[in-house]
Amino acid sequence: MTTPTATLLISCPDQQGLVAKFANFIYANGGNIIHADQHTDLAAGLFLTRLEWQLTGFNLPREFIAPAFNAIAQPLNAKWELHFSDTVPRIAIWVSKQDHCLFDLIWRHRAKEFTAEIPLIISNHLQLQEVAEQFGIDYHHIPINKDHKLEQEAKQLELLHQYKIDVVVLAKYMQILSADFIAKFPQVINIHHSFLPAFVGANPYHKAFERGVKIIGATAHYVTSDLDAGPIIEQDVVRVSHRDEVEDLIRKGKDLERVVLARAVRSHLQNRVLVYGNRTVVFE
Amino acid sequence: MTTPTATLLISCPDQQGLVAKFANFIYANGGNIIHADQHTDLAAGLFLTRLEWQLTGFNLPREFIAPAFNAIAQPLNAKWELHFSDTVPRIAIWVSKQDHCLFDLIWRHRAKEFTAEIPLIISNHLQLQEVAEQFGIDYHHIPINKDHKLEQEAKQLELLHQYKIDVVVLAKYMQILSADFIAKFPQVINIHHSFLPAFVGANPYHKAFERGVKIIGATAHYVTSDLDAGPIIEQDVVRVSHRDEVEDLIRKGKDLERVVLARAVRSHLQNRVLVYGNRTVVFE
Amino acid sequence: MTTPTATLLISCPDQQGLVAKFANFIYANGGNIIHADQHTDLAAGLFLTRLEWQLTGFNLPREFIAPAFNAIAQPLNAKWELHFSDTVPRIAIWVSKQDHCLFDLIWRHRAKEFTAEIPLIISNHLQLQEVAEQFGIDYHHIPINKDHKLEQEAKQLELLHQYKIDVVVLAKYMQILSADFIAKFPQVINIHHSFLPAFVGANPYHKAFERGVKIIGATAHYVTSDLDAGPIIEQDVVRVSHRDEVEDLIRKGKDLERVVLARAVRSHLQNRVLVYGNRTVVFE
Amino acid sequence: MTTPTATLLISCPDQQGLVAKFANFIYANGGNIIHADQHTDLAAGLFLTRLEWQLTGFNLPREFIAPAFNAIAQPLNAKWELHFSDTVPRIAIWVSKQDHCLFDLIWRHRAKEFTAEIPLIISNHLQLQEVAEQFGIDYHHIPINKDHKLEQEAKQLELLHQYKIDVVVLAKYMQILSADFIAKFPQVINIHHSFLPAFVGANPYHKAFERGVKIIGATAHYVTSDLDAGPIIEQDVVRVSHRDEVEDLIRKGKDLERVVLARAVRSHLQNRVLVYGNRTVVFE
Repeated sequence: MTTPTATLLISCPDQQGLVAKFANFIYANGGNIIHADQHTDLAAGLFLTRLEWQLTGFNLPREFIAPAFNAIAQPLNAKWELHFSDTVPRIAIWVSKQDHCLFDLIWRHRAKEFTAEIPLIISNHLQLQEVAEQFGIDYHHIPINKDHKLEQEAKQLELLHQYKIDVVVLAKYMQILSADFIAKFPQVINIHHSFLPAFVGANPYHKAFERGVKIIGATAHYVTSDLDAGPIIEQDVVRVSHRDEVEDLIRKGKDLERVVLARAVRSHLQNRVLVYGNRTVVFE
Repeated sequence: MTTPTATLLISCPDQQGLVAKFANFIYANGGNIIHADQHTDLAAGLFLTRLEWQLTGFNLPREFIAPAFNAIAQPLNAKWELHFSDTVPRIAIWVSKQDHCLFDLIWRHRAKEFTAEIPLIISNHLQLQEVAEQFGIDYHHIPINKDHKLEQEAKQLELLHQYKIDVVVLAKYMQILSADFIAKFPQVINIHHSFLPAFVGANPYHKAFERGVKIIGATAHYVTSDLDAGPIIEQDVVRVSHRDEVEDLIRKGKDLERVVLARAVRSHLQNRVLVYGNRTVVFE
Repeated sequence: MTTPTATLLISCPDQQGLVAKFANFIYANGGNIIHADQHTDLAAGLFLTRLEWQLTGFNLPREFIAPAFNAIAQPLNAKWELHFSDTVPRIAIWVSKQDHCLFDLIWRHRAKEFTAEIPLIISNHLQLQEVAEQFGIDYHHIPINKDHKLEQEAKQLELLHQYKIDVVVLAKYMQILSADFIAKFPQVINIHHSFLPAFVGANPYHKAFERGVKIIGATAHYVTSDLDAGPIIEQDVVRVSHRDEVEDLIRKGKDLERVVLARAVRSHLQNRVLVYGNRTVVFE
Repeated sequence: MTTPTATLLISCPDQQGLVAKFANFIYANGGNIIHADQHTDLAAGLFLTRLEWQLTGFNLPREFIAPAFNAIAQPLNAKWELHFSDTVPRIAIWVSKQDHCLFDLIWRHRAKEFTAEIPLIISNHLQLQEVAEQFGIDYHHIPINKDHKLEQEAKQLELLHQYKIDVVVLAKYMQILSADFIAKFPQVINIHHSFLPAFVGANPYHKAFERGVKIIGATAHYVTSDLDAGPIIEQDVVRVSHRDEVEDLIRKGKDLERVVLARAVRSHLQNRVLVYGNRTVVFE
């Protein structure tokens, strides 16, 4: 598990021979595939695949893998990403006042469930600064109000740049990012505290209580400019009953939010999520 | 289990001593309570309870239970229903073309999971007439189009009256009932093939596929004049993945629809469902 | 979906280049892969894969696929099976007195969830003969007692031979098959009404009740000579509470048994299950 | 929620009038019941109930509630416990090396999901001392080996006494308590990392992997002198597949262990768990 690997995530118009072509590229260069999975979206006419192989024994030097693969990918009109397992992604966690997802992500990071670095926490409040200090993570307080939102987003972007952040995790960050922000920094994962598309927007647990649902959920998704409408990575649910007040839904929901967000972040960090259209393939 | 019981479903403004008052009514008359459950909706200020006791040894003759209890209930502004377990409810199942819920309800009835009679099937199509004949249930074909919908609803109501139906179960009946119909016959249970309030209306599995959800659901609810917005009795879900096409969602969803509808019908038939506002308490 | 496909299920000692080799075999002969999945069991050092491709346009005539692939497989010490989607498998359903799994399998067959023929029902009781007749399936009554068990198994084997049965589905057949029978006819799927390995053997719901579990389960597995110890294909569970008597566990369990058995049978019929050691890979 | 309440947990031989008797006791003294639930175990002939009422306005002074209720309970042969919500229970958490349940319990305590004090952590290892210090909880290192186990248990009991501990939570404490210890301190909740009664004892995830199960579970139970055989409070499960190695089962299992243990501890602290025989009623 400790030897470095390369991973290709590829999507291209479906045609004959794609599995063989991609597998041959790796085999011909002496690579040992340790994970290969593919999916064909028949309606979209798309072939989607994930290939991971060991770099030890692979005859192509790292810097030539991308250009060499491009020669194969271009005639196929393929979109692709190449990742190396020893390039550790850098996460910024954004929070507001609630600490459960933050604590959980930090705990999982310490437990080595995530291969990542977490050098930065951004918050529009001060409450969780103490937690950041406790675990030795830089904490930047950037309060948000509608009058200076764009200005503050510029500061946030500057921090992401400065800390060389690869992915932002909104761990109960109760603010909406502007379309402009998302255009500039599209790698953002959010946890929404409902079973989307039910209860978009604010106060989903209150809405769930009012509607009298018997099950509540949580959804992790990539953020797009449409509120709570981005590609879904993971969802889960828990049963509730008439005995559960709104505060019980909130409490039960926290357990969901933690685990759903963690699974989504882990899949993302392992380069298992391929987005196309407004959908995801999560290769397991 | 075979000795007859009486069941009271009561809702009233919350106040001190209600549990004692209702329990005393039964105890003072020599009744043996076999199920008692209560719930207080703090926000609504309502006390809701279900009491079931054995009629054997109960000193009040059946016909006097209602008037005697009314003397207690009226000063409390209580709404209540009284049911006897040996009064077997009569169900009409309404279907369109799909047979899975129909078969399932009939099988459960034969397996004695439901204490009920099923003398009537109504459909806007002819496809399932054969199934009705196979199991010896009367089948009435009442086609629906928008020009004569009210006229056809009058026929449906006439049949419900004629067959002495207590509750209508819409077992994938793909038509909307008019507000007028519901006003005249309010005891209608529907199965909707989504996790409400997500995907209200037509083609929920297609919408779920397009949204890229990772879990699908089904919802059994009482029908009101607002489409798919009535009080929810039961919901359940199943995990799906990118590998599932729309037809897979439909197939997996059928298993949900069967079991969710069956649980709701069983709870209703056992007088375990208390509706208040747009919510239900399901006493287990 | 209606064009015929071929499916290879392969297991062999892991080595470099296997994905490429197998994919090339299909591509070189003009085949269009519509499903490819693989798994490496690192502990066992085994590579396991499922490849399905369209026969239309495939240049190798059907009868030559096996010998041609064998030339590739033999040097790799691969075990493999080849299936054609238009060779419809023939199922024998074995039952005792309970009808829920039988009804369910028949309904799914009618609903085209299974591509299979069901020409034969065998039972040690007479109770379900009527169901068999209702759906036009031959029913053979072979009572079992310990004095003539081997003799009766000989009759059963003769029937399986006569009806050209590919797989036996024990749909709540409450008898144990002898090791000798399994050796002669190893393709047998059983549904056990517990979450194995908990509650092996008789009366699992009674045992579950006595143990006071909060969740019950059902398990579909291939039958081996060890009771309830064969390779597991599928499991599922449902929550129970102190309110559930043994009869409630039985009722709730029936819903599990139906759906778990159905999923296992479907996976088996689609050649998605690869057994190795006492484990299964279920390619989805 | 902030006004203090009293809670009675009662079990007694079933007979007529019990609901009325117990409710009358509270009503006659001016109490306002905020939770009442009961269950009859027909097989055992036992009536089990939980009654919670507000102390504000209750005319019996606290110190007289127990003797007054005893006068009612004794003729009924009832066993009962009386708890006051403002008597905050004191928990000792016992750990070995794994931190996930410990962190989780501490986080929930801080989040006010538990009304309890956590003054003491006992461990047979030193690894988690730092966590204890971080959160200001006393940490006692009591190493265990079979030669001096009884001696060490005496030290543990002394600490429980000294810290006035009401309940011990074994949060992945990988040692077996002696029958003698349990006899002296019976209030011990354990989390076992399997779906009991499957995989009793050591290394359940390894055993689950070897058995090839498709679902894994976790179980919280009261500890008795029989290993992993005490009354079950809560269980939950998660789906796994052939892709999951033992280390994945361990990782997924940790999420289960955290939430199952937390639910059990919360139910216990709220006096919602009534043990009888080897079973529990968990009043919700």
